[in-house]
Amino acid sequence: MNKQLILKKRPVGAPSADTWQLITNEIPEPQEGEVVVQTHYISLDPAMRGWMNETKSYIPPVAIDDVMRAGTIGKVIKANNHPKFKIGDVLTGWGGVQQYFATDGKGHFKVDTSMVPMPKYIGALGMPGMTAYFGILEVGKIKEGDRVLVSGAAGAVGSVVGQIAKIKGCSVVGIAGGAEKCKYVVEELGFDACIDYKNENIHAGIKQHCPKGIDVYFDNVGGEILDAALARLRMHARVVICGAISQYNNKEAIVGPKNYLSLLVNRATMQGMVVLDYADRYKEAGMQMGMWMMQGKLKTEEDIYEGIENFYETYQRLFNGDKRGKLVLKVI
Amino acid sequence: MNKQLILKKRPVGAPSADTWQLITNEIPEPQEGEVVVQTHYISLDPAMRGWMNETKSYIPPVAIDDVMRAGTIGKVIKANNHPKFKIGDVLTGWGGVQQYFATDGKGHFKVDTSMVPMPKYIGALGMPGMTAYFGILEVGKIKEGDRVLVSGAAGAVGSVVGQIAKIKGCSVVGIAGGAEKCKYVVEELGFDACIDYKNENIHAGIKQHCPKGIDVYFDNVGGEILDAALARLRMHARVVICGAISQYNNKEAIVGPKNYLSLLVNRATMQGMVVLDYADRYKEAGMQMGMWMMQGKLKTEEDIYEGIENFYETYQRLFNGDKRGKLVLKVI
Repeated sequence: MNKQLILKKRPVGAPSADTWQLITNEIPEPQEGEVVVQTHYISLDPAMRGWMNETKSYIPPVAIDDVMRAGTIGKVIKANNHPKFKIGDVLTGWGGVQQYFATDGKGHFKVDTSMVPMPKYIGALGMPGMTAYFGILEVGKIKEGDRVLVSGAAGAVGSVVGQIAKIKGCSVVGIAGGAEKCKYVVEELGFDACIDYKNENIHAGIKQHCPKGIDVYFDNVGGEILDAALARLRMHARVVICGAISQYNNKEAIVGPKNYLSLLVNRATMQGMVVLDYADRYKEAGMQMGMWMMQGKLKTEEDIYEGIENFYETYQRLFNGDKRGKLVLKVI
Repeated sequence: MNKQLILKKRPVGAPSADTWQLITNEIPEPQEGEVVVQTHYISLDPAMRGWMNETKSYIPPVAIDDVMRAGTIGKVIKANNHPKFKIGDVLTGWGGVQQYFATDGKGHFKVDTSMVPMPKYIGALGMPGMTAYFGILEVGKIKEGDRVLVSGAAGAVGSVVGQIAKIKGCSVVGIAGGAEKCKYVVEELGFDACIDYKNENIHAGIKQHCPKGIDVYFDNVGGEILDAALARLRMHARVVICGAISQYNNKEAIVGPKNYLSLLVNRATMQGMVVLDYADRYKEAGMQMGMWMMQGKLKTEEDIYEGIENFYETYQRLFNGDKRGKLVLKVI
């Protein structure tokens, strides 16, 4: 049987257990030209919260009673004259929160798991890694010697952003929640410093670690931390708007950055990005990132939980901070 | 005698009559290598409000008991072996709110008033015009066919921004306060439409006049209008942050743009600008703008009031909207 998680209602604020419902269906059969994939790992991402809103965004909302959208990696178990994929192939794509699905293969890519374990393909070599790569290089436009500040520094995107910036010769300051995460960010990932926003004053921390100001701020969180970063921009600074996790569960309007006029004072740029725009360059980025991993310059970690039944509990870790690196749900 | 307006205290919120004090001094004598200028016209600009704050900005604050900073144009009445300037020359620069001043000439430029009247040199051919020119072309990066939205459309900067965008083949929608100003913006300046924010719903107005969204928004005002514009950005839109007149007199923190995540959804850019950065290109811009004026493609207007004694009363027109085009104080 095929367990599927469907969206039952649009959450107001944080989702609750009854936002979704786990249902059971027959395992699908492939139509002519289709394959059926058994999902092994499901990617859990803060962006999921946005996909549940009815508001127009960069991607259509998940419809009520549809399977919850998610990035996945899994193995082809049935094939019906598919032109490219055969049984045993490992595919990554938008499989959704379910154990099995049929697909004509659009939006799914075959990957080689002989060298790289499956979860990595939905982590550092998947959306979060691609987001980090194109966000910091193409939008952040880092150059050697830049002082780079990264929020969510122990997370799937931020951890990679900071390491790429280090590889490119920047000095890098992270922001993360808790002493343990900060220790990880500095000692394991090699950031120059990390500010613990749960126990330190964020303004004082930025002032201490970026005494001359910030050249590039990579924002995953929004809210007060974005404002604190804006207050210390250098001339011609770049602010990359990648996400705003502190605001996603707001019941009222988002809090806007009250220090946005720092953009004027410092002739700075704030630019939004969506990784999907770089799809035709994922391969280039993946090869580069794989190389850095093999050279030991890029460390990535997955935090793996088990069981599709535990989706809601695991999802909550995205927002309460109780995870490190890429959050993954193992479903086989 | 020389009447000078000095800053007596830093205003909290809007300035009041006792923010400044008018004092009388001797007319200065030029030292060796100096000239003395008699000011004819003083430029009144919303940016003046910012210069009175103690906060670090793109220019140092005016010190307490210093002459209030202002752009000026006037005539050399005394000279003491100045290498470039002689009696009778007309100079524009940072003369401040006073009738006479001595200068070594740094930051002052000689202009030709045989074709162009003096006030134009502190208006469309001065800071506001330069701001409009470089803001919309270099930061807004307009291209033919763009839908451009401009706030403060009847003002010194906005009126020029919109006309340049029209010259470049964009369709242009203004935002201004009151039916009369809107009529001026459309019928005299040639904008395609103008939204009267005092009598119309700004969200509905933008939706009506920019049905496919906004490619470039030139922001002089901040606050609710900035938020309304952000809500209707097109993909890859550019938001030029030139000023935030609605926020300058806030007693509490500035209101940040709560719709800033539209930058992410639409891969858009919000960039601040300060005209001083383009000083080495003022001449190029001035020649182009002068040409457009002679061709009748660029209409500019000055709203001139008289008497240094009336500075405070005239200054208030910047913020209560009771003026059109460039606000100028005639002091001779």
